[in-house]
Amino acid sequence: MNISTSDDAARWRGRGVIARYRAYLPVAETTPVISLGEGGTPLIHSPRLSAAIGRACGVFVKYEGLNPTGSFKDRGMTVAVSKAVERGAKMLICASTGNTSASAAAYAARAGIGCAVVLPAGKIASGKMVQAVAYGARIVTIEGNFDQALEIVRALGQRDDFAIVNSINPDRIGGQKTAAFEIVEELGEAPDFHLLPVGNAGNITAYWAGYEDFCNAGKAKRRPKMIGFQAAGAAPIFRGEIVVRPETVATAIRIGKPASWSQAKRAIADSGGMIDIVSDEEILEAQRWLARGEGIFVEPASAAPIAGLLRAAGAEKVTAHFSAASIPDGSRIVCTVTGHGLKDPEALASAIAAARPVPPNETAVLRALDTARS
Amino acid sequence: MNISTSDDAARWRGRGVIARYRAYLPVAETTPVISLGEGGTPLIHSPRLSAAIGRACGVFVKYEGLNPTGSFKDRGMTVAVSKAVERGAKMLICASTGNTSASAAAYAARAGIGCAVVLPAGKIASGKMVQAVAYGARIVTIEGNFDQALEIVRALGQRDDFAIVNSINPDRIGGQKTAAFEIVEELGEAPDFHLLPVGNAGNITAYWAGYEDFCNAGKAKRRPKMIGFQAAGAAPIFRGEIVVRPETVATAIRIGKPASWSQAKRAIADSGGMIDIVSDEEILEAQRWLARGEGIFVEPASAAPIAGLLRAAGAEKVTAHFSAASIPDGSRIVCTVTGHGLKDPEALASAIAAARPVPPNETAVLRALDTARS
Repeated sequence: MNISTSDDAARWRGRGVIARYRAYLPVAETTPVISLGEGGTPLIHSPRLSAAIGRACGVFVKYEGLNPTGSFKDRGMTVAVSKAVERGAKMLICASTGNTSASAAAYAARAGIGCAVVLPAGKIASGKMVQAVAYGARIVTIEGNFDQALEIVRALGQRDDFAIVNSINPDRIGGQKTAAFEIVEELGEAPDFHLLPVGNAGNITAYWAGYEDFCNAGKAKRRPKMIGFQAAGAAPIFRGEIVVRPETVATAIRIGKPASWSQAKRAIADSGGMIDIVSDEEILEAQRWLARGEGIFVEPASAAPIAGLLRAAGAEKVTAHFSAASIPDGSRIVCTVTGHGLKDPEALASAIAAARPVPPNETAVLRALDTARS
Repeated sequence: MNISTSDDAARWRGRGVIARYRAYLPVAETTPVISLGEGGTPLIHSPRLSAAIGRACGVFVKYEGLNPTGSFKDRGMTVAVSKAVERGAKMLICASTGNTSASAAAYAARAGIGCAVVLPAGKIASGKMVQAVAYGARIVTIEGNFDQALEIVRALGQRDDFAIVNSINPDRIGGQKTAAFEIVEELGEAPDFHLLPVGNAGNITAYWAGYEDFCNAGKAKRRPKMIGFQAAGAAPIFRGEIVVRPETVATAIRIGKPASWSQAKRAIADSGGMIDIVSDEEILEAQRWLARGEGIFVEPASAAPIAGLLRAAGAEKVTAHFSAASIPDGSRIVCTVTGHGLKDPEALASAIAAARPVPPNETAVLRALDTARS
């Protein structure tokens, strides 16, 4: 064979969203590309959600759980970490117990630099930190609260050798735009509606920026109405005020003061969209429905837009909520589901009933199945 | 908008490996396509594994954990379930505690049919069954052992309304071939070596069939040497005899009597490859190394070929094991990692040390990081 390693390295270093959408991202030709092959996630047509809305509407699910660390965060992290390495950073730092720390830790490992996660002591649910630890992140707990952790992270982020990768890092939103690009390319045009969960509001901001970029570049003729869903117990944008103690089962959107609050409001206003809320019960029911009805397993936060759409399907009149009356016939609707269900299996493990064993023969097994069916 | 739902349904029903490789699969134009957008997984160049082997070799990791249910099984399941639905099956049935039942349950949900998992009572590790339950599978436990469960599954599989999706289903191997197609298309040619874990031996059989198909079709000029790795405690092919009580931390390859034993032997012989073993310690160390060294988190079984390659890199002489001496300069080596690390987080959760909290200031956090670093 006469293929050298350097050829391979050059050819493959750029797989992923930077290689595909370099012209739209804040990277130079000389920026080192730190990628794990993120992006290119399936856009799955949902016959059952389409039928629920009816009137020749088509509903698609953008399954972001199939990114390398299981969430959409990887799209932004590849850009943020590539830029951090370009600037000479030796250590990523963040205050996050969830998808951000998992993604940061993975891309730091890929880059061969360190990753530090600063957290309040006693607030670590080990299930959520398993990934960051697996990727070799250093977890430092402080005798203080989350705001103090974030303050320390911001201060350390000023050092030349550190790079902060919390959502205040603007390179992350740049990378997250690429999901909108993929949707337009696959559908041949922007959808009429784009529904997604809203926590820190970086993703709704990013998608809107992506749709705008593709309109400006002549790759799309129109932009969708952006419909954001917050959990009822963590709905600062919907309520118009900071939520001091946000509470929801959907941990990925349990945010009381979104980092991209004003940008999200602008995206919603400019697109003619809306911000809405769903209850924890609606979220869990939608999570269950999507796994059992379409074979798509997501973490609870991801189910928020599905919950909103299912509720809209049953609402014939215009109400304060997003409703079928707002959806014209023949609309195309995309729902982003942000993280894989394997991210949060604890919620489901308890659902495994201790079924009584049956005798080892066909008849007994068939009878057990018939019982389960009825 | 004037796009009808039926257009969307027609356009999207076939995303995934059947749409991409229909000509090579046992499906007709009229076969209904049950897909969740499987396949198209990243082939990630590994600079560190390449450097470990040296001599201008290039090592790539095919990250099959990014399939919809987190493992390579989805490639085969889309074909098996599409064919089952074509035949009119109303219920999938299998005896599996792991990736097969998760995949079967997801594709059954997508198809709108049932999925039954038959298992011996008392042998269910709930973590492994979370996915199947989430996708709505019915779990029936029997007062018997695994062989009896499989016997019942085979018997019920004879019914017209049931379809067995255990590894004896040949349509699954057909679908799993598609990973080899993707590798040839991405590299422009087959690699020199293909390393992968071996349990039931369906995957090594499938990859070899895929490489052969592409040679016969003129899409590749050569085929790789197939190098399979079994866990030392579950190595029937390596030892040449059934292992009555297979034991290994790598549950996905804990198999004592592989379903595709003879086909695997043929693939290894015809390709000039070999079957080898790695210890549980080597597997766990490789799993940790791959996550921390390349940012790729896999389940233990997936780390078997990485363990084998790392050991080979340190072995200069020809031994009974796969060694660097068998690898010519400039070789291209692909390692398939079959499942996502999120599939088996329990193994790692225990590794999260209860670190002592530090005072909430920059200096204390920096000191904690320096301690962790040294």
